[in-house]
Amino acid sequence: MRAHADFDQLLQTIVDDLAPERGAGELADYIEPLRRVDPLSFGMALCTVEGELYCAGDATQRFSIQSVSKVLSLTLAMQHGRHDLWRRVGREPSGNRFNSLVQLEHERGIPRNPFINAGALVVTDVILEMLSDAKATLLDLVRGVAGAADIEFDREVARAEHETGHTNRAMAWFMKSFGNLQGDPEAVLDAYFHHCALSMSCVELARAGVYLANGGCTPEGMCMLSPAQTKQVNSLMLTCGAYDAVGEFAFRVGLPAKSGVGGGILAILPGRFSVAVWSPGLDRAGNSVLGTMALEQLSSRTGWSIF
Amino acid sequence: MRAHADFDQLLQTIVDDLAPERGAGELADYIEPLRRVDPLSFGMALCTVEGELYCAGDATQRFSIQSVSKVLSLTLAMQHGRHDLWRRVGREPSGNRFNSLVQLEHERGIPRNPFINAGALVVTDVILEMLSDAKATLLDLVRGVAGAADIEFDREVARAEHETGHTNRAMAWFMKSFGNLQGDPEAVLDAYFHHCALSMSCVELARAGVYLANGGCTPEGMCMLSPAQTKQVNSLMLTCGAYDAVGEFAFRVGLPAKSGVGGGILAILPGRFSVAVWSPGLDRAGNSVLGTMALEQLSSRTGWSIF
Amino acid sequence: MRAHADFDQLLQTIVDDLAPERGAGELADYIEPLRRVDPLSFGMALCTVEGELYCAGDATQRFSIQSVSKVLSLTLAMQHGRHDLWRRVGREPSGNRFNSLVQLEHERGIPRNPFINAGALVVTDVILEMLSDAKATLLDLVRGVAGAADIEFDREVARAEHETGHTNRAMAWFMKSFGNLQGDPEAVLDAYFHHCALSMSCVELARAGVYLANGGCTPEGMCMLSPAQTKQVNSLMLTCGAYDAVGEFAFRVGLPAKSGVGGGILAILPGRFSVAVWSPGLDRAGNSVLGTMALEQLSSRTGWSIF
Amino acid sequence: MRAHADFDQLLQTIVDDLAPERGAGELADYIEPLRRVDPLSFGMALCTVEGELYCAGDATQRFSIQSVSKVLSLTLAMQHGRHDLWRRVGREPSGNRFNSLVQLEHERGIPRNPFINAGALVVTDVILEMLSDAKATLLDLVRGVAGAADIEFDREVARAEHETGHTNRAMAWFMKSFGNLQGDPEAVLDAYFHHCALSMSCVELARAGVYLANGGCTPEGMCMLSPAQTKQVNSLMLTCGAYDAVGEFAFRVGLPAKSGVGGGILAILPGRFSVAVWSPGLDRAGNSVLGTMALEQLSSRTGWSIF
Repeated sequence: MRAHADFDQLLQTIVDDLAPERGAGELADYIEPLRRVDPLSFGMALCTVEGELYCAGDATQRFSIQSVSKVLSLTLAMQHGRHDLWRRVGREPSGNRFNSLVQLEHERGIPRNPFINAGALVVTDVILEMLSDAKATLLDLVRGVAGAADIEFDREVARAEHETGHTNRAMAWFMKSFGNLQGDPEAVLDAYFHHCALSMSCVELARAGVYLANGGCTPEGMCMLSPAQTKQVNSLMLTCGAYDAVGEFAFRVGLPAKSGVGGGILAILPGRFSVAVWSPGLDRAGNSVLGTMALEQLSSRTGWSIF
Repeated sequence: MRAHADFDQLLQTIVDDLAPERGAGELADYIEPLRRVDPLSFGMALCTVEGELYCAGDATQRFSIQSVSKVLSLTLAMQHGRHDLWRRVGREPSGNRFNSLVQLEHERGIPRNPFINAGALVVTDVILEMLSDAKATLLDLVRGVAGAADIEFDREVARAEHETGHTNRAMAWFMKSFGNLQGDPEAVLDAYFHHCALSMSCVELARAGVYLANGGCTPEGMCMLSPAQTKQVNSLMLTCGAYDAVGEFAFRVGLPAKSGVGGGILAILPGRFSVAVWSPGLDRAGNSVLGTMALEQLSSRTGWSIF
Repeated sequence: MRAHADFDQLLQTIVDDLAPERGAGELADYIEPLRRVDPLSFGMALCTVEGELYCAGDATQRFSIQSVSKVLSLTLAMQHGRHDLWRRVGREPSGNRFNSLVQLEHERGIPRNPFINAGALVVTDVILEMLSDAKATLLDLVRGVAGAADIEFDREVARAEHETGHTNRAMAWFMKSFGNLQGDPEAVLDAYFHHCALSMSCVELARAGVYLANGGCTPEGMCMLSPAQTKQVNSLMLTCGAYDAVGEFAFRVGLPAKSGVGGGILAILPGRFSVAVWSPGLDRAGNSVLGTMALEQLSSRTGWSIF
Repeated sequence: MRAHADFDQLLQTIVDDLAPERGAGELADYIEPLRRVDPLSFGMALCTVEGELYCAGDATQRFSIQSVSKVLSLTLAMQHGRHDLWRRVGREPSGNRFNSLVQLEHERGIPRNPFINAGALVVTDVILEMLSDAKATLLDLVRGVAGAADIEFDREVARAEHETGHTNRAMAWFMKSFGNLQGDPEAVLDAYFHHCALSMSCVELARAGVYLANGGCTPEGMCMLSPAQTKQVNSLMLTCGAYDAVGEFAFRVGLPAKSGVGGGILAILPGRFSVAVWSPGLDRAGNSVLGTMALEQLSSRTGWSIF
């Protein structure tokens, strides 16, 4: 592994090299706040397990992390060690779009994994069974690991998700019909929509995720998960973190990662670092076009990969 | 990583600890030669990138490697660098049984990945377009990497596959109907059935696969694939190598691996070693029950994992 | 056609012959009011286009007509001649269970036909776009055609449907997500659940349905549909009226019919008569076991069939 | 029913009225002989149960009857009263394209009905179990009911089907893998392709099919099926005869019918007549555009319909 001193330059080179590609892909258009993001935005930040931080581009601008939050809510649910979590949600890639109800029908309301929408709804339901205020608790967790006390839910995004989230609402009721949702679907959806509406920058996201590269603990020694649990989360990110393009993503990038339709991606090199990229243009699978390219370059230029 | 001197003992401990589980799972029963394998068989072999070999249990007894051969035939196809390979076969986990035709119909004859049967048939077709004798060439490749000139196809297995392989035959014709099979389906099936009928021991299989842990080259310096290609194959093993249980396998074991219904599994720790296990009892997904447990123990006892 | 004088005896013979089969099949068990119906109940009523009525068994006992009401709500929607009705709901047999969401996903929220739950929800939504009180209007229609001013919704059934109808709720939101539901899903569901909760006897149901045998008009000359529309409804009953067993039902009975999970079936011989049967034990497809047998006997003993 | 004297004029009026539509739809293009049919062809013939024949347009020109032959092969299989026929093939509309393998996988090799390709292959297999020469026997049957000793298989069509019929071949092997094909798939396919390659005119087809309108017997008194069996075939035509558009066809036309991709349709009004139409342009479901329009006009102008 090259000296850390080179990292800032490495990220800058990648950001510069990909400058001509800015604007590639399509913005998520299902809610207004995502539609009006600057399509040319592009940022990148890397946080080592020692806590050193490197960044380039629009790395301090906040964006809607959307499904990247599913890693954080899964962490929260696993912290409380619920014995029935893995009976209520599977651990397999879905082979379908992230918002498909087909698989739920065929597999009697058990979502394939915690990183598709249905799975994250079950994870949220599990959290709500344990905690009186699932929104505040996750916010506290995120502020803690990111070291940024002013991280907030984007209320406008949460409200827009609530108003248009009919497919998620259908999923929640469908799982309720199979007995795989304990709480009131509207309460689960409210918490879920807020989690998706977390607004964070690349710098904050890289910091927030570095515990996954460090056996479950932050560089400051705050432990979120056990080493064994951390491996499990990383394995799920690898096999289920990039919507219906996990194979392609592993083939090209070779790092456990979770993407969101806001254009953010959090990737992990276990034992080394976390890296967050953001560019709002998405490919057909819903992953950031430039984000994926940036991670691919990071891997190919350095040989860093789990493979 | 612990000293190599401990490896023999490590494997022996795993084999001993799992002795009470021998016989767990169900033998593949679709052809007679697989039905009459001793269900108590259990072997394990590990080959480091330096070429050092460690083993325990029935590690020198040959068995039918079945779908583990798909890694070798993919290697052969990638060696010849066919530009259209990845247009004709995908790189995503299937989310379906290994012999499903449903996905082929929905995706117009393009198999999801090279490690399900349909994908391996396309890979075989690609090989046949380049090589006059696909069977002999693969046999030569295997003998070379395994360092065992007497490795053979089990003709009885190949014949039994031929006689009962109606589902594979249906797949081949179905892909032909979509224009995704160039050759005569019967010729493709003949080569494919022979590849699946390779008879190898854990020792031979670990040796044969160590190039995947070593950037594409054997410890003796014979290079099968480039480092970039090697990463790609490993990523495909991780996301697609364990039938419809890849997520579960990654969650528990955390190593790229390819399993076969003969009960063999080849797993890779990049940069370190390859490991082959064999026990013929299968779980519902078609993966060796004891083989998976042994790899899980190897990972949990040592912390070795890509995550 | 035999003399009408024989009809009472014909129905009585069928009811007597099938007496040993009373209790066959399984009661619908998803709501309490359906679970406590007497499983031995069995009634039959036939109404000719001249308005003559014949009956046998428990023909005057009211039961929950459930999905048989879908014929009446479709009639109501067609009366108002909405131009977009057939763009929002298809006219094909579903090949799936009556409460499947799979087909909705594959066909972008357009239900296959108006007699599966999703289709009836769209029909109800269409009615609600036109009428301020969809429940009262349908009740008036039913009372009119049945000639029974005291027909009511069973409020207990409606409430139980409301409390347990999560799958229907999921469907409604899912169609809303595709833009194929205009109204508030809860309002649509409320009207739908009430329609399903209509409580009628065989005598009332036979009378209520005879307009379908008479070119759209009751024997008293009240016209519900045009002759062309009447044929259309009958054709839909034949191809879509018996859940996922329409082929089998046509093969055995040979009459357009609509069944409900309360155990009722309304069948039509165009130009001749309507016939209603009721017995609460259901087969796997959700059709009344004795009801189907009774109609099969009616057809085989008399040769009455559209084929 | 109007006097027979009007029939010639009625057919002629329909043919004239639809003249501007000649050429609508797309010709089947999967084999060369079907591609070179004159797209403007349009013929119509009606045969009453008394044996009177009426026709208009290109009613004496022969065409490839394709799937209309499935009615004849089913008749042949039912004549021999095989007890296991309905255990090996279902009686439900498929809800899928005529050549889908998906349903076969989900329902373990049992085709939904005898009028989709897979079902007709099973019917052909059943015939081959009973008869040494399935091709000659069906040809004899057809010549007999059509009263035309010179009806032949179009050998060029049969050969082209054989050469391009990979999807049917995949289906045959797939059903073989489920144990639902007894014979050699190639022999079954050979007989099946020949049955589809029957070359007949509208006049011959109307004559050949009139036994279905007459309780199973030709006007000359040759009985092919019992009255009960005849009803069964008619019900299957209604629920399964028009590919994936049976509901639409019943809604618009209201007659049991079987169509073929050669552009022919045979329809039945039980107790009255058979009618054959032919025009090679197909709609998306594979039914003749003008043929369907002609039958719709026949029904709407006269009120003739089973509904």
